[in-house]
Amino acid sequence: MKRYIGVDLGGTNIKVALVDDGHQILIEKSRPTLLPRPAEDVCADIVAAIRDILSQAKLTAKDVCGGGIGCPGTVDGKRGVVSYSNNLAWRDVDLAPMLERAIGCPFYLENDANTAALGEARAGSAKGAESAVIVTLGTGVGSGIVIGGRLHAGYSGTASEFGHMVIVRGGERCTCGREGCLESYASATGLIRMTWEAMRKNANSRLWTLASSREEVNGRTAFEGARLGDETARRVVDLYIDYLACGAINIVNALQPEILSLGGGIAKEGETLLRPLREKVYAEIFGGRGRRYTRIEQCTLGYKAGLIGAAILAEDNAGASR
Amino acid sequence: MKRYIGVDLGGTNIKVALVDDGHQILIEKSRPTLLPRPAEDVCADIVAAIRDILSQAKLTAKDVCGGGIGCPGTVDGKRGVVSYSNNLAWRDVDLAPMLERAIGCPFYLENDANTAALGEARAGSAKGAESAVIVTLGTGVGSGIVIGGRLHAGYSGTASEFGHMVIVRGGERCTCGREGCLESYASATGLIRMTWEAMRKNANSRLWTLASSREEVNGRTAFEGARLGDETARRVVDLYIDYLACGAINIVNALQPEILSLGGGIAKEGETLLRPLREKVYAEIFGGRGRRYTRIEQCTLGYKAGLIGAAILAEDNAGASR
Repeated sequence: MKRYIGVDLGGTNIKVALVDDGHQILIEKSRPTLLPRPAEDVCADIVAAIRDILSQAKLTAKDVCGGGIGCPGTVDGKRGVVSYSNNLAWRDVDLAPMLERAIGCPFYLENDANTAALGEARAGSAKGAESAVIVTLGTGVGSGIVIGGRLHAGYSGTASEFGHMVIVRGGERCTCGREGCLESYASATGLIRMTWEAMRKNANSRLWTLASSREEVNGRTAFEGARLGDETARRVVDLYIDYLACGAINIVNALQPEILSLGGGIAKEGETLLRPLREKVYAEIFGGRGRRYTRIEQCTLGYKAGLIGAAILAEDNAGASR
Repeated sequence: MKRYIGVDLGGTNIKVALVDDGHQILIEKSRPTLLPRPAEDVCADIVAAIRDILSQAKLTAKDVCGGGIGCPGTVDGKRGVVSYSNNLAWRDVDLAPMLERAIGCPFYLENDANTAALGEARAGSAKGAESAVIVTLGTGVGSGIVIGGRLHAGYSGTASEFGHMVIVRGGERCTCGREGCLESYASATGLIRMTWEAMRKNANSRLWTLASSREEVNGRTAFEGARLGDETARRVVDLYIDYLACGAINIVNALQPEILSLGGGIAKEGETLLRPLREKVYAEIFGGRGRRYTRIEQCTLGYKAGLIGAAILAEDNAGASR
């Protein structure tokens, strides 16, 4: 059995796992990232967590084949350098080489949305698929493209930003500077905005029993209201799924992956979200739904996707030269 | 020197070429497709054209390593079958096996936009690039994705329809049934509509000296008017490039190819189109224009891209099993 280290470095927590070649997590640890901190200090904590896990597993660095790490921001995967991370407030940090020197096995770096997509595509909902697009519906809309089992990261690593695809030209202002991006409509942030707008226009909506101010509205509010039979809530959910479908159809028309998987908070609605979404998508995709068509599924790995994906990154690269 | 046959089957003409392994066309022939005709008759003409070329080159089928054919519509590349072509009015035609039996060497089939993209990516404007998206601005907006030198055709061959990516939700009705597709704005058809709409609102525009009815407006009219210094024409061109930029930014954010090449009639405007387009794209792409960024270029092979791409399809597949 071969073993790999997977690290998911987030703005809140550092997660580290020992993963086997069957993509199962054997041991995992988490500790707070405690930002803002210099890269060296965060790196020292990652190293400590890895040593902790190795000692618990009664292993040394020689017993693992390599490690992978996912981190927010723009990375130069070839050199293992975090080019820029707004989230971590880092610039030009040679993270993979630092871990390599400290642990004594090869380390590989990728953007965290990409490592999570790689995990979900290879070991989760899209396991065995020839191609997959993973879309995460959270505070923002993240995505990752896996073709033939390999990440498509783009020419300098900034690909797969389907969240920043304009679907409503001249629409809502997005954090990226454009107007009308998918993220402005299909993220939890977008859904919360739409929910609150509908509440303000409908004083009698039962949504007011679920939230009494904008601060109390979250990504579940509209779905809960719809389950209570509230018409305003139902219309918000329908509009939300309409926007999401518009983006999903664009993605399918562009790449026609075997699987399109949805993760993140809103995807936890499961079939409540997926059933009407599939209906809208299959009615409009180019060329119709033939004998072979993109399946739309819910992600299955949750936060573990990032850990397993980072380990897979190591598995794919260990042995190959930098 | 290895040689391949490249066939570009269009609604108007059948083009056939003998292509060497340096991707140069040695001999080419063209004859009218004469639709509507049964597949067998069209196939017989393709075979005659191929035999013609072989005889002119003093070669037999044994001297060529294989053939590729691009045709409009949905194809099943694995089986070499045209699943459905609206343009040819064909359904379930086993075109590649028919050619294989008649000529006596392996034949491979792809959608014609894909073969043209493959040619342009491997032997034209994107030669040597690790990834490329080719967008054709003609009557419609076609596109092809080439990653690591290979076509990304999608799960059942309907990928790379960037023309059918909604950028204006609820906008102009598209031939595909959706509203607000890139094709409705960035195609020659879209540009002609915008030009005519502007003319109707501006009786004094010099565009009226270039065209006196909607029928006389074409994809060059607005650009010509702008060159004459006409303000109405300049605004149409600017609006057109704005829509095109919106789509181009979506493509770059999604795939970040090394090269984005534009072909088709409107791309013949060259730098008049490309310079302002690049400006708009680089101002808005996600993550900004870093040290490595997508270059935006004009296609260089014209109609030859389809012939050379079909030959490359054969080159890539000949020897490999179906």
